[in-house]
Amino acid sequence: MSDFLLPRLRTLDPYVPGEQPQDRRYVKLNTNESPFPPSPRVLDTLTREAVSRLNLYPDPLARALREAIAAEYGLEPDNVFVGNGSDEVLGFAFMAYADETRGVTLPDVSYGFYRVYAQLYRVHPVIVPLNEDFTLPAENFVGRRGMVALANPNAPTSLAMPLGEIERIIAGNPQNIVLIDEAYVDFGGETCLPLLSRYPNLLIVRTYSKSRSLAGGRLGYALASPAIIDDLNRVKNSFHPYSINNLTMLAGIEAMRDRDYFRSCVEAICAQRDASARELAAMGFSVLPSATNFLFASPPGMDGLTYYRKLKERGVLVRYLSQPMLARHVRITVGSADQMRALMDATRDILKEGTA
Amino acid sequence: MSDFLLPRLRTLDPYVPGEQPQDRRYVKLNTNESPFPPSPRVLDTLTREAVSRLNLYPDPLARALREAIAAEYGLEPDNVFVGNGSDEVLGFAFMAYADETRGVTLPDVSYGFYRVYAQLYRVHPVIVPLNEDFTLPAENFVGRRGMVALANPNAPTSLAMPLGEIERIIAGNPQNIVLIDEAYVDFGGETCLPLLSRYPNLLIVRTYSKSRSLAGGRLGYALASPAIIDDLNRVKNSFHPYSINNLTMLAGIEAMRDRDYFRSCVEAICAQRDASARELAAMGFSVLPSATNFLFASPPGMDGLTYYRKLKERGVLVRYLSQPMLARHVRITVGSADQMRALMDATRDILKEGTA
Repeated sequence: MSDFLLPRLRTLDPYVPGEQPQDRRYVKLNTNESPFPPSPRVLDTLTREAVSRLNLYPDPLARALREAIAAEYGLEPDNVFVGNGSDEVLGFAFMAYADETRGVTLPDVSYGFYRVYAQLYRVHPVIVPLNEDFTLPAENFVGRRGMVALANPNAPTSLAMPLGEIERIIAGNPQNIVLIDEAYVDFGGETCLPLLSRYPNLLIVRTYSKSRSLAGGRLGYALASPAIIDDLNRVKNSFHPYSINNLTMLAGIEAMRDRDYFRSCVEAICAQRDASARELAAMGFSVLPSATNFLFASPPGMDGLTYYRKLKERGVLVRYLSQPMLARHVRITVGSADQMRALMDATRDILKEGTA
Repeated sequence: MSDFLLPRLRTLDPYVPGEQPQDRRYVKLNTNESPFPPSPRVLDTLTREAVSRLNLYPDPLARALREAIAAEYGLEPDNVFVGNGSDEVLGFAFMAYADETRGVTLPDVSYGFYRVYAQLYRVHPVIVPLNEDFTLPAENFVGRRGMVALANPNAPTSLAMPLGEIERIIAGNPQNIVLIDEAYVDFGGETCLPLLSRYPNLLIVRTYSKSRSLAGGRLGYALASPAIIDDLNRVKNSFHPYSINNLTMLAGIEAMRDRDYFRSCVEAICAQRDASARELAAMGFSVLPSATNFLFASPPGMDGLTYYRKLKERGVLVRYLSQPMLARHVRITVGSADQMRALMDATRDILKEGTA
């Protein structure tokens, strides 16, 4: 830290991404990536010819990409905003709708970045505790002052909230933006997309990083009323107008259009998830019903941190989150069949060691 | 604009990027892109295999890329920060070092985005007028309160400031960050890189968009003390940790390493620039001595807006900027020989029309 940094940023706690240790090759089940490569149509579109045009700026309006996304969801391009990963979309949304004059209401357990944005933008966060079973109490998100932000399905709990409860929150905050982060919705959540035409305060955030196999491409988007999209563009154009690079733009179009590939990946991940959940349960784990591409699981006879460490010693990385309510659990990405076999083998070894 | 947007953002004037009209094919000389494709090594590194790994997140620390940049400039990776275009790097720098408690000192004529950041972050800008000959009065940037930001060479004037004057500004602001935007330095400016080891307040910002032919890849970087780089990382990791996509990371490494290609492109652009400047001068234009990949030129017998419009009618786009001091000029990107021939033909036609 330099002597020049603004005093209020000195105490900032930045987000800590899932570790990428370099000491050995790990089975990486800690960042909820897809085990599948991007669609073959993505591979086909990123030609040498496309790369040779990188000397030219991208379309700052990202027209072709927004059209492809809109077409997929039965919307107009004016309903679509695109950003450099959904983190950037979230960052712009917080910038547009929250500051010290208006708080933001957040679940106590959710995507950790929401609190970081609140700190960065001097926003007072109102934190709503979860129920003991890790579900969100919808009634406590109603009638707030300022933006409400939550993930559905939620992370790291993997639980989906029924659409009726989401609607109750949106309807119960007519003066506020309600941001629903649907990063994981394709794996079994109910999207609130059908509510878009009825609620001008609804802002849906999505990502290409999970179900579209493009975490390395950095692409996220928002679906909302044209007025909200216009707000996000105002903020983006005051930060960096050319936020999406040319290749990601092309990749995003093809990944969206290839429905068959998308469906087959999602189905394979869900099948693997359910099989892995059963296998862990049979070993004595408590596993929450997942509507995502990860499992939130509590091992028998040890806390989450111990299990995380023992897995890491055996070359398997999962995510441990240190909030007290989460101390018994870890978050396990649903990887390929091979990766999950490695996880199960390591787990059996750990449990055997415990009883030896 | 929605009813939810923060009141202070309603009056924001976002940056307006160079137009990309879709009504016909234009000779595009309005955004200072390189007329050359990226290095063949960039084309070779973005293989189908590389694309197929886009399901995995990038390294949030961008180690390999920062090493490649550091190696090129004789620095350590800890001296290098990378961002999604230099606009993002500038955005993070303003976020880290300027707010309503500390102003920012800016030239009256410079890259238009500096003022937009000031608005976005509620920073009071102290505007220093240029001399009549468009040079910057170094003495008026000394002993300021808060960050000083300027481009060297400056845009849209194309003029370089001698290193001695830049040093005077840096030495004259020991309490403040001095941000020197060297977007165009490779085309003839003097870099202040040699000052880095002596001045802990110096922050140099660079881009791959101009001399490295990667405007469509979105990659910029900062060179500074490790403490400043740490500040920028704190801000970035509170906004979006995975800011650089995997393909741009690979492209950035190869574009930096291919010195021969870089030099041959820069030499060709400078030669074309000098020839075009002579040709315009012979037609009666007043052309400032350019240390960049563009010309700041004033046509004979008409103002900049008229010339811009007449060029556009003839299918040639240049940039007109509406600040009063710039009203007689346009900014013309140095394009390929063919593009410059089209500009000259259109210009001869316009001048002939004027005297007909």
